[in-house]
Amino acid sequence: MTEGTATRLLDAVPPMTVIVVGTGLIGTSVALALKACGTEVWLSDADQGKARLAAELGAGRLLPPAGPPSGPADIAVFAVPPAMVAVALAAAQRNGLARCFTDVASVKQLPLSQAAELGCDLATYVPAHPMSGRERSGPAAARADLFVGRPWVLCPSGQTSAECVALVRGMVGACGAQAIEMTAGEHDQCVALVSHVPHLVAAAMAAQCAGAPGRALALAGQGLLDVTRIAAGDVGLWTEILAANAVPVHEILLSVQAQLGAAADVLAEISAGQEEPAKRLTAMLETGREGVAALPGKRGGPARHYAVVQVVIGDRPGELARLFTAAGAAGVNIEDVRIEHSPGLPAGIAELSVRPEAVPVLSAALAAGGWPVASPA
Amino acid sequence: MTEGTATRLLDAVPPMTVIVVGTGLIGTSVALALKACGTEVWLSDADQGKARLAAELGAGRLLPPAGPPSGPADIAVFAVPPAMVAVALAAAQRNGLARCFTDVASVKQLPLSQAAELGCDLATYVPAHPMSGRERSGPAAARADLFVGRPWVLCPSGQTSAECVALVRGMVGACGAQAIEMTAGEHDQCVALVSHVPHLVAAAMAAQCAGAPGRALALAGQGLLDVTRIAAGDVGLWTEILAANAVPVHEILLSVQAQLGAAADVLAEISAGQEEPAKRLTAMLETGREGVAALPGKRGGPARHYAVVQVVIGDRPGELARLFTAAGAAGVNIEDVRIEHSPGLPAGIAELSVRPEAVPVLSAALAAGGWPVASPA
Repeated sequence: MTEGTATRLLDAVPPMTVIVVGTGLIGTSVALALKACGTEVWLSDADQGKARLAAELGAGRLLPPAGPPSGPADIAVFAVPPAMVAVALAAAQRNGLARCFTDVASVKQLPLSQAAELGCDLATYVPAHPMSGRERSGPAAARADLFVGRPWVLCPSGQTSAECVALVRGMVGACGAQAIEMTAGEHDQCVALVSHVPHLVAAAMAAQCAGAPGRALALAGQGLLDVTRIAAGDVGLWTEILAANAVPVHEILLSVQAQLGAAADVLAEISAGQEEPAKRLTAMLETGREGVAALPGKRGGPARHYAVVQVVIGDRPGELARLFTAAGAAGVNIEDVRIEHSPGLPAGIAELSVRPEAVPVLSAALAAGGWPVASPA
Repeated sequence: MTEGTATRLLDAVPPMTVIVVGTGLIGTSVALALKACGTEVWLSDADQGKARLAAELGAGRLLPPAGPPSGPADIAVFAVPPAMVAVALAAAQRNGLARCFTDVASVKQLPLSQAAELGCDLATYVPAHPMSGRERSGPAAARADLFVGRPWVLCPSGQTSAECVALVRGMVGACGAQAIEMTAGEHDQCVALVSHVPHLVAAAMAAQCAGAPGRALALAGQGLLDVTRIAAGDVGLWTEILAANAVPVHEILLSVQAQLGAAADVLAEISAGQEEPAKRLTAMLETGREGVAALPGKRGGPARHYAVVQVVIGDRPGELARLFTAAGAAGVNIEDVRIEHSPGLPAGIAELSVRPEAVPVLSAALAAGGWPVASPA
């Protein structure tokens, strides 16, 4: 473990007892993360098989019908679909299941307003959303480290008690995440842009490939794979998320659609023999480029600029070990690695991201080790 | 080098002498790949500085104004923007620069029809397009292995001689790529789907992020980064590519736009209190999921199904080396690795893809080495 991780663990105050209601990907991951901090974790799911699987994965114990034997838990976490949060909250509050309640739904205004309508006690409810996910779902896809270093948005209402916010912050820190507070409205607006609309855009592009000729798809490269990857996510859950955040998603979607419509108009004019409209296409692509540049680097804060060294590697046991051993022996810290496999050939290219000043050292070390190293850009 | 790579080199027939006209990313990469096979490579670029940089990178020698001292080359490769190919071809044929001519432009009908209009000798022209690229450009981004295992489309016209096709096939094989023949029209249709429209879709999504509040962008995860990555590409070149393939791109773009419009309509109806329309959203997401599943695996042919083992790693020299050494010592071949960095924390998660049967061995080996291993899905 590095110093950074140690700091995180010191900052975090894991709650003593937590009930996780809903043992899908997120719920089970929360349970695994808290379990690793020594928290007593109780699991519950409408689907008993799912709860049992989570328990078998080491995420905690099955919640007895009468609640935890030790009395009310510190926190009950509702990891259920957005539209189920308020109902689960109302039932849990009626049964005195915990001192404090939170959820992990991808939208925040819907469960908050539904909780108010159902007459829930809003003082003990901290609406929340960890910004972690995977295109896979279910307890088997869960991981204890899913939240490490990721933002976890807390949306306390005006009525939420400071004690409950502090308790949930401790839990978030124990999961390795960074708590960020904003209103439910701001949250829903933000995730429409960075998560919900991208999902729809990826799905719309991917849909063009369904039923497309194999000869066309065989030409696809990493670009198309990346653009469409998230469209593999859980269809039922995503329908509910998009429906629950319909207003902000609709607004941004119209803007994307208008951009594509403008691009289509330009292409139609060019097809008709005009050249001038290409300038509008260039301007649109420029704005896209600015948007990519505005996205945060993978470590948060201002993006570090790494240099990339490319190495051709064979596909056999020990090849990567030898490569990384050579890099380590040269004192070079590899910040990131991406392996591009070669379709049809058992060889690949490892792209090693390092600080720019480490490039000459690394290149020399790898060349000395017999690896073909490509000139870095 | 593995057996597969050796097979490739035996199959390929590298040409003796090649002139590369245009030393950007693709031209310089072709030159580097052929140079590595022992081909005599001559470099030329309208921008002398770019040609010199390519020569300094070891891609070949600068082409003398009178042509190669050894006489006409076997092949001249035009790695120039699509609209420049025909003019360059006409000039090269006038000067008797080579026996055979090919290009690498991302569209194929435009250079072919322009070459016919200019009265070029179509018997010696093999229109072609390697399906490799990067979001970076210029000779410094070039790599000798850019084409390894990728498709390289050849679009001989009815007039192209069999001898020239065979010669270019030899060059393609020498670059490690797989030659695929189709008509120029079919090519343009295919790349509109797998490359040109995805670029516009990524750019339209990325454009929404330009000028968006930092608090929103701070919540962005790998999903948005992947969807928008290719929008960082060369704006001028992409304008030209899209304009040169305007008709098929326009057609598919309208289809994407219609899908997003239909999604927007559904969201508007849901905002207005209806629930029924959500089914249409689900159907659209289902089609997107089918599209993702239809895309080829990264090795071509039917996708292999790997299992993923997740390991938390520290961010310091030697950490990956120790990890891969442990895997290698256990006899496990790591098929792919992806490192997910944790924003704000110097720790990351390595996702190791291995054959499913290797999971228990690898997990045991890593656990024995002290790494926290997450349960594979």
